[in-house]
Amino acid sequence: MEISLNQDQLTKALNSCSRIATNKAGLPVLNNVLLRAEKNRVVVGATNLELASVSLIGAKITKQGSITVPAKLLSEYIANLPSGTIELSSKATTLHIKSGNYSLTLNGIDADEFPELPTIDEKESIHYSLNVQDYKQAISQTVFACSSDVTRPVLTGVFWNSYEGQLYLVGTDGYRLAERRLTATKSELAAIVPASTLQEVSRVIHDDTESIDVLFDETQVRFRVADTEITSRLIDGKYPDYRKLVPTNQATTAVVAHDDFVRVAKLASLFARNSGGSVNLTISDEKNNLTIQSVASELGENSSAIDAETHGEGKVSLNSRYLSEALAAIDSQQIYFGFSGALSPCVLRSSAKKPDYTHIIMPLKS
Amino acid sequence: MEISLNQDQLTKALNSCSRIATNKAGLPVLNNVLLRAEKNRVVVGATNLELASVSLIGAKITKQGSITVPAKLLSEYIANLPSGTIELSSKATTLHIKSGNYSLTLNGIDADEFPELPTIDEKESIHYSLNVQDYKQAISQTVFACSSDVTRPVLTGVFWNSYEGQLYLVGTDGYRLAERRLTATKSELAAIVPASTLQEVSRVIHDDTESIDVLFDETQVRFRVADTEITSRLIDGKYPDYRKLVPTNQATTAVVAHDDFVRVAKLASLFARNSGGSVNLTISDEKNNLTIQSVASELGENSSAIDAETHGEGKVSLNSRYLSEALAAIDSQQIYFGFSGALSPCVLRSSAKKPDYTHIIMPLKS
Repeated sequence: MEISLNQDQLTKALNSCSRIATNKAGLPVLNNVLLRAEKNRVVVGATNLELASVSLIGAKITKQGSITVPAKLLSEYIANLPSGTIELSSKATTLHIKSGNYSLTLNGIDADEFPELPTIDEKESIHYSLNVQDYKQAISQTVFACSSDVTRPVLTGVFWNSYEGQLYLVGTDGYRLAERRLTATKSELAAIVPASTLQEVSRVIHDDTESIDVLFDETQVRFRVADTEITSRLIDGKYPDYRKLVPTNQATTAVVAHDDFVRVAKLASLFARNSGGSVNLTISDEKNNLTIQSVASELGENSSAIDAETHGEGKVSLNSRYLSEALAAIDSQQIYFGFSGALSPCVLRSSAKKPDYTHIIMPLKS
Repeated sequence: MEISLNQDQLTKALNSCSRIATNKAGLPVLNNVLLRAEKNRVVVGATNLELASVSLIGAKITKQGSITVPAKLLSEYIANLPSGTIELSSKATTLHIKSGNYSLTLNGIDADEFPELPTIDEKESIHYSLNVQDYKQAISQTVFACSSDVTRPVLTGVFWNSYEGQLYLVGTDGYRLAERRLTATKSELAAIVPASTLQEVSRVIHDDTESIDVLFDETQVRFRVADTEITSRLIDGKYPDYRKLVPTNQATTAVVAHDDFVRVAKLASLFARNSGGSVNLTISDEKNNLTIQSVASELGENSSAIDAETHGEGKVSLNSRYLSEALAAIDSQQIYFGFSGALSPCVLRSSAKKPDYTHIIMPLKS
């Protein structure tokens, strides 16, 4: 292999690869990044057998060929070189890098030992072209609600599913649930994408990226962001039929200013740390307010009230962290908060008529 | 105690206290902050018995008195309240806080159990008034070179010492040494200030602070930043006579661009991680350059050359991290690097005629 290419482009391609390349499967070659010089481009690829990243870079190819070298080391080295042209040449399992007066010899592993990179049959797939800002927001609104409990694998992913002509993303850990409506769809989709894959995709999005292409086949999903494709297996299994768990009406409701709610949730959380994480929320129709209280028996007692547009009266106990995380995920100046008695799920969402994001939290028994 | 005061001012005062208040001495009251209402001001204080922070805040005092309450909890609570007036009242060991519709009851400890806060006799002390930017830079240039080895306590502090009419700050761990000339002085000073104290003082400096007052007596130092005074014990012991270790002349020297030197040191460090941290530096009078090489036997070999104004020829091995940290501390576009043979100390400093900062690194035996 003998090629010359641009430092900036190679840095971007290696950035994605270096995070995916790990030795967790016990194969040393998975620590490496694959460099393969074809006609007028270079394939830069890494895989951890569940997730693969492949970037294509334009390059001047003097001699075709391929090699694998340690991904993190190469990534850091290239990123710290001055901008300009870099020359790469390989001989057996050694890679030579030259840029001006900087030179590096790096020992690698034969490219034949590298696993085959996954492919998707584009004709047999479901395809979405998404606005990057919508995608990033939807991921940040749902991923945190996923479970990290590997004994229930379906809950460690985000459920992409179509319903009445709309595509929804859903995350739940069994105690709370986040649902985001993303875009209109004519296809029928029900696929569970690992949360870690979605976070990885968010990381490779550069500021100048505008759209992201997503392609599903039966067992895989592929995200294309600029010149990088990230392909991941889907999580096998049946997602819970969550729609019947989402309450349609709430007997007791309050609409409050987002900033006020965040503030009083934060104040209550300081004490909730010492009381098993529980905070009490009371809606008063008489006082037209929402009160949050937390009691830490040794430390003291905290109570904050904020003005609210109320309907009905009632009290419920919630996990303080779940409440704060839900509020952080809702992008709205006014928040709707509702429940029906102390034991049925609480609903948090924007106060808009047709909000695209709904968050459900199961109450604690107080 | 019954007082009302400004949220913003109390937040700033508690910010400093909450980091100092810890239970490390095994006394629960040291977790607490002291609030003491005097005539027309409130004393807000914390101590860990080595270091104390005291702030004075103007307040409306309805009833004098004092109490101690958990410092971190109060600090976070007050910081999250809306700006405006806060009312505090205490009854026995309970503190009530009220701000609009927010209220808190906090259990504390009687102020009588709180240790006496340290005082300094101003008349018997040496006094400096320092520019905040100079102070912060001097601290960041010397503290990192201090030792963390508690078996040699004098090296865990920065040595403030006068010499030929100038005040110098010095940090060393025995393998490297950083010396910063700070200001002219007519006093004779030789005092070792704990590195942790200096970092704490740097943290309480707000953007709008312009000067900082420093007062030394025989056993203590006090820093006054705006309304906050931080008082610390000095480290007992004799600092090494470091001046005779600093070489006055170097046989082999190079002057190089700061950015170039930082870049090649970084590239070499990537490989030095796998080779015991050692990098080789070679000055060539023939090629007028400085070359850095690092070899990690399994991974490969790295070599980078940068243009240099040279004098003499030679080679030396340095710890890669020490080199990078020294370069980061030197505030200059051109760096002077010199040594006399492979075993005597290397000197790094600005290329200016009378640089105010000098860094010494002992070479490794290669």
